[in-house]
Amino acid sequence: MPLVYLTRVEKFNAAHKLWVESWTEEENFDFFGKCANKNWHGHNYTLYVTVKGDPDPKIGFFYDAKKLGKLIREVITDRLDHSNLNLDIEFIPKGTMPTTENMAVLIWNELEPHLTGCRLHCVKLQETDSIYAEYFGEQ
Amino acid sequence: MPLVYLTRVEKFNAAHKLWVESWTEEENFDFFGKCANKNWHGHNYTLYVTVKGDPDPKIGFFYDAKKLGKLIREVITDRLDHSNLNLDIEFIPKGTMPTTENMAVLIWNELEPHLTGCRLHCVKLQETDSIYAEYFGEQ
Amino acid sequence: MPLVYLTRVEKFNAAHKLWVESWTEEENFDFFGKCANKNWHGHNYTLYVTVKGDPDPKIGFFYDAKKLGKLIREVITDRLDHSNLNLDIEFIPKGTMPTTENMAVLIWNELEPHLTGCRLHCVKLQETDSIYAEYFGEQ
Amino acid sequence: MPLVYLTRVEKFNAAHKLWVESWTEEENFDFFGKCANKNWHGHNYTLYVTVKGDPDPKIGFFYDAKKLGKLIREVITDRLDHSNLNLDIEFIPKGTMPTTENMAVLIWNELEPHLTGCRLHCVKLQETDSIYAEYFGEQ
Amino acid sequence: MPLVYLTRVEKFNAAHKLWVESWTEEENFDFFGKCANKNWHGHNYTLYVTVKGDPDPKIGFFYDAKKLGKLIREVITDRLDHSNLNLDIEFIPKGTMPTTENMAVLIWNELEPHLTGCRLHCVKLQETDSIYAEYFGEQ
Amino acid sequence: MPLVYLTRVEKFNAAHKLWVESWTEEENFDFFGKCANKNWHGHNYTLYVTVKGDPDPKIGFFYDAKKLGKLIREVITDRLDHSNLNLDIEFIPKGTMPTTENMAVLIWNELEPHLTGCRLHCVKLQETDSIYAEYFGEQ
Repeated sequence: MPLVYLTRVEKFNAAHKLWVESWTEEENFDFFGKCANKNWHGHNYTLYVTVKGDPDPKIGFFYDAKKLGKLIREVITDRLDHSNLNLDIEFIPKGTMPTTENMAVLIWNELEPHLTGCRLHCVKLQETDSIYAEYFGEQ
Repeated sequence: MPLVYLTRVEKFNAAHKLWVESWTEEENFDFFGKCANKNWHGHNYTLYVTVKGDPDPKIGFFYDAKKLGKLIREVITDRLDHSNLNLDIEFIPKGTMPTTENMAVLIWNELEPHLTGCRLHCVKLQETDSIYAEYFGEQ
Repeated sequence: MPLVYLTRVEKFNAAHKLWVESWTEEENFDFFGKCANKNWHGHNYTLYVTVKGDPDPKIGFFYDAKKLGKLIREVITDRLDHSNLNLDIEFIPKGTMPTTENMAVLIWNELEPHLTGCRLHCVKLQETDSIYAEYFGEQ
Repeated sequence: MPLVYLTRVEKFNAAHKLWVESWTEEENFDFFGKCANKNWHGHNYTLYVTVKGDPDPKIGFFYDAKKLGKLIREVITDRLDHSNLNLDIEFIPKGTMPTTENMAVLIWNELEPHLTGCRLHCVKLQETDSIYAEYFGEQ
Repeated sequence: MPLVYLTRVEKFNAAHKLWVESWTEEENFDFFGKCANKNWHGHNYTLYVTVKGDPDPKIGFFYDAKKLGKLIREVITDRLDHSNLNLDIEFIPKGTMPTTENMAVLIWNELEPHLTGCRLHCVKLQETDSIYAEYFGEQ
Repeated sequence: MPLVYLTRVEKFNAAHKLWVESWTEEENFDFFGKCANKNWHGHNYTLYVTVKGDPDPKIGFFYDAKKLGKLIREVITDRLDHSNLNLDIEFIPKGTMPTTENMAVLIWNELEPHLTGCRLHCVKLQETDSIYAEYFGEQ
């Protein structure tokens, strides 16, 4: 039976800042540059979720791509969309920096328990046209 | 002499919210939906500036595209990048809603006096993959 | 009051063929090439709807972009999505060729009566990465 | 000798439907939703073929990218373009669902015997902006 | 009869430099910066040709988009592809700077006499993701 | 500690030709086709550099994406931009064909010694919309 990888893409828009609470504003700005603007900035994020499995011979897939999109929206992107990543999101612990790198790991951990009948392979989060992070689970 | 249109594209990331100060949080949410999240959200904006003029026969352009990019960054996008559009920007009057539509007009008004040797034709501002606004000046 | 143009982008996937009923299969193939495959082919279509108006000073827009998206989906793209453009669509008269050019005009005519508080400026329909049609109404 | 991966991108447009012959129209619609429209729908597909090998020191590649494009078009995309994936394609067995997942496997099996002087690494097929499947061969 | 605009997109890759023959290398570099590298640089160009006309009621278009693509390739892009724009192209007069702005005008002049049954509306030439020029003919 | 992959995208424009010095012009043209135009052609290249590491719990990343961009520009793309890849670049040995495949390996070798605190995972170089090469180091 062939192993196939299926990727579903969803989007959300959010505000955040990079800011270590125990540092002064000047220290944050020195380290994070404009990303530490205390009044926030934001991004259009694109989320790629890749799952893998063996397509059922009769119906031709192992996980309905439309159902996967619905799951990602319900569990992840509907909650993140038009939010403040530092303040509003339950699955981002307070004090955890909402970098693209950390977000990829947190999204994996939040989404993975909801997937049955397939294995999660990769969470890729694109923050701008020039930056994205990928997480493949613990290895 | 041929009239040619030249477009330069620049980008910036910013936070904003749609929020009428004289309304309650509930009224704002009823009207603007998730765009009224009081903790802000944000976008990757793409700005298209189109100028028009007659290319100089010797050098082949009427306004150096690299110089145009530098001007747009200095006058507009370096100031907007990693900012909060409701709080941080001098040329967005307090109480003026930072919608894509208003931003296109405000960017035109801020940029136009700096352009010499060509005429500004269009300011196009893209907020997401599915929404953009264009302004062609007073007509 | 400034006149601003707002564009909303929506997508749909559909099947069609280019086929003149009064011609033989051979005549259709000679004229339309592979587009006349009697078993149909299909496309991912991208629809750009541009409206124009004067933003309200208080709320910053003349027509809510989210509301515009909802209207386009209800009146146009939800009906066209996963359809056969030659067979399934009430507002495409039987015998009218579902070319990108004709579709742009038909979508304008179907959508325009639903727009109040702004004027429709352009319907642009992209069929592939290399082909799109635009219609600006009767002129 | 370094191992390098080369990817060539080709496109095709096709109609299909997701439809189990032994089910009623209602059962198909309940399971596959709009994808089961009996009158078909369609997509612009983008195909990414990745091969791997050691570049020849003199000519700088192990498989001419232009030749790879020509091969993919002849063996795969010229046959799929403007076709009906359920009805028209010899290498898609009747009754095999033309899902993106199955298509990736079938394209691998059809293309792989034609490749000499390099190894096939991945067939990636994108169906819409939000869905794609990848197949890396039997593992 | 409705007036519809049809756009066809074609691509080519070419080398060029911005260089005034009567200037020294230093003068050229002072004025054009890196674009004056005497050993050339190059781009992937994207050409958008827009024509307008009234679709034929029977066949649904006024100019076959496939035929338009073939014409553009034969008259323009097959000649420009993999060329040196300063040295190799007959319709770029020696000493005429191959800027995007000038190229848009020259392509219009070369293509326009070949179009029958429709009117040329716009030649748009994109040089990089951040620079493009448009020409709408003499006005 | 989670292992995360971070990718940074940078661009450059350059001229090149595929040309074996010991062959005649005819032999080169027979083998490389239009890529052997003796007067050069060129491309807009897009470079994807992927590094991997364990994000620092306090600051949320293992290598600052902005710093990574600055490094790539200084060490690689500022040197390649507006250059002739056959003539101008110190780290492309004379006689080494500047194919996308070879460039990916050469960029890896040039960049890798500058990376501290993370491991280089992949250099991907895109030459056109339909061709890219990837190199993952010696394996």
